[in-house]
Amino acid sequence: MKKLINNPEDVVKEALQGMAEAYPELIRVDVENQLVVRKEAPVQGKVGIVSGGGSGHEPMHGGFVGKGMLDAACAGQVFTSPVPDQMYTAAKDVNGGKGVLFIVKNYTGDVMNFDLAAEMAQAEDIQVQSVVIDDDVAVQDSLYTAGRRGVGGTVLAEKICGAAAERGDSLDDVANLCRRVNENVRSMGMALTPATVPAAGKPSFELGPNEVEIGIGIHGEPGRRRMELQSADDITEMLAEPILDDLPFKNGDRVLAFVNSMGGTPYLELYIVFNKLHEILKGRGISIARSLVGPYITSLEMQGVSITLLRMDDEMEMLWDAPVYTPALKWKA
Amino acid sequence: MKKLINNPEDVVKEALQGMAEAYPELIRVDVENQLVVRKEAPVQGKVGIVSGGGSGHEPMHGGFVGKGMLDAACAGQVFTSPVPDQMYTAAKDVNGGKGVLFIVKNYTGDVMNFDLAAEMAQAEDIQVQSVVIDDDVAVQDSLYTAGRRGVGGTVLAEKICGAAAERGDSLDDVANLCRRVNENVRSMGMALTPATVPAAGKPSFELGPNEVEIGIGIHGEPGRRRMELQSADDITEMLAEPILDDLPFKNGDRVLAFVNSMGGTPYLELYIVFNKLHEILKGRGISIARSLVGPYITSLEMQGVSITLLRMDDEMEMLWDAPVYTPALKWKA
Repeated sequence: MKKLINNPEDVVKEALQGMAEAYPELIRVDVENQLVVRKEAPVQGKVGIVSGGGSGHEPMHGGFVGKGMLDAACAGQVFTSPVPDQMYTAAKDVNGGKGVLFIVKNYTGDVMNFDLAAEMAQAEDIQVQSVVIDDDVAVQDSLYTAGRRGVGGTVLAEKICGAAAERGDSLDDVANLCRRVNENVRSMGMALTPATVPAAGKPSFELGPNEVEIGIGIHGEPGRRRMELQSADDITEMLAEPILDDLPFKNGDRVLAFVNSMGGTPYLELYIVFNKLHEILKGRGISIARSLVGPYITSLEMQGVSITLLRMDDEMEMLWDAPVYTPALKWKA
Repeated sequence: MKKLINNPEDVVKEALQGMAEAYPELIRVDVENQLVVRKEAPVQGKVGIVSGGGSGHEPMHGGFVGKGMLDAACAGQVFTSPVPDQMYTAAKDVNGGKGVLFIVKNYTGDVMNFDLAAEMAQAEDIQVQSVVIDDDVAVQDSLYTAGRRGVGGTVLAEKICGAAAERGDSLDDVANLCRRVNENVRSMGMALTPATVPAAGKPSFELGPNEVEIGIGIHGEPGRRRMELQSADDITEMLAEPILDDLPFKNGDRVLAFVNSMGGTPYLELYIVFNKLHEILKGRGISIARSLVGPYITSLEMQGVSITLLRMDDEMEMLWDAPVYTPALKWKA
């Protein structure tokens, strides 16, 4: 295992400590509880937004904490759900009297632990709602999931709901908006190479020297199929078409097109995928209203790409454009 | 070679096309001449700033084109200098009557071609100044360089000089500022894995399964030494100490601390390096005034990290904080 780490068991805490030192103006970090919290939290009169999940998907979620996005992120060990106490502590930390929204990626451990934390918070009269994101069209059930997995759509939901909370929307309204984002977003990913969890010390799966996996999960869970490497154009079609046909996206729709690096993919390759995606969308009469290209929901050093498409409406566009100031996503105010 | 590409010879043009489609509000792309140009260029009454170099280091430089940073970036083939015609065309495209600054990384081909382009532009009465960035302390001369290589300091010079140009500074003033940044910035990098140039089809060098290279260049040029992988803390010391001793940085200095991914390194590892770097700086009485963490000057999918430290003064801090709106660096306005 070739990684820039010290002890595998200290990876998450040391990385959180490093984040705290890099962004003191944006966040504070509770290293003991593995929480990244917006510096000025709790913001009175604003719905608090909490997300979280296993580490190894950075910048998700800690990198999205700050003005206009998340109020707190709970970091589990690598590829391992955080525990209910973390989410419960986060809910208390960010509750500004208007309640707390949990945005949860659909993995069994995450869903169960966020549910327990919601009960704990509600027992102390903190209003909590949870919305589960399940945007991955690749597989129905999978290794860690009943139903579809939550992937890139989560980034978009967190940005859009963060903006709605910032303008003062109620908990019901922010939760409903989050559900609306989830209903209109679809994703699918692929891998060229596996990733190695530091505590495991070896890759979580194997791929042959010319083999790729289509429909991979962000923990390396099996996808739809393995095959020989094909051209970027062909692979982009294999990802885009199931996404487009699933919702389905239609002629006249406008979308946010998100091409995500699984961690180790050069920008050159992401832009080549974006170029083909643009052509496919144009061919179906779908316009790209907004875009996001880069490593935002990763799987450690995995090489590969995922595509996420969100059907936008006027309100989502306005909220997407609203100011955001976090370590990983910054927009002009 | 496992890459998301179509034909190796089309990599740069297709990626540029993808960039154009992803960021139509920020840039326009001249695919034929491989130029990324700020959408509203030429901006009248503003010094135009042009940079460029071989592709494969994305988001540098095309991702830095936009308000508050570069007016144009010239993209060569992967790891190959752009040609003088590209830089000359860029100078004409961005000259708003106040002259053009070329920011050049110190590689023999880049320096020679930017010099030729400057002569061509001057022959048409466009004022041009060139500043060469040579911040890499690892080696004196190297495979493609007489003197030190230009690396991460270039990102910081482009941001700071872009802000100075935006506020209306003269060409002389922006060029002098660029020299001042170069005098106060030092960098060093290391690699865990090599990268593969698409047209070559195989890694540009080999590293054993537990071997790393300290002082690597961004094209995989040899560094100071190869050794067995060590802890992140030890490697951070091996990079930080030569940087600190070179300027030298002193007790009481405040710095911009930039921890850069060579392309394939997870954020978790970058933050672990940042954590140790913070401790080393603190031990020397040096404070971190600003930070930048992520993939900004890469070497395709290479895993590894570079550290860049810039000794900041009040003006540099103000210019660093000034609004920027480009594909890869965005700040609140």
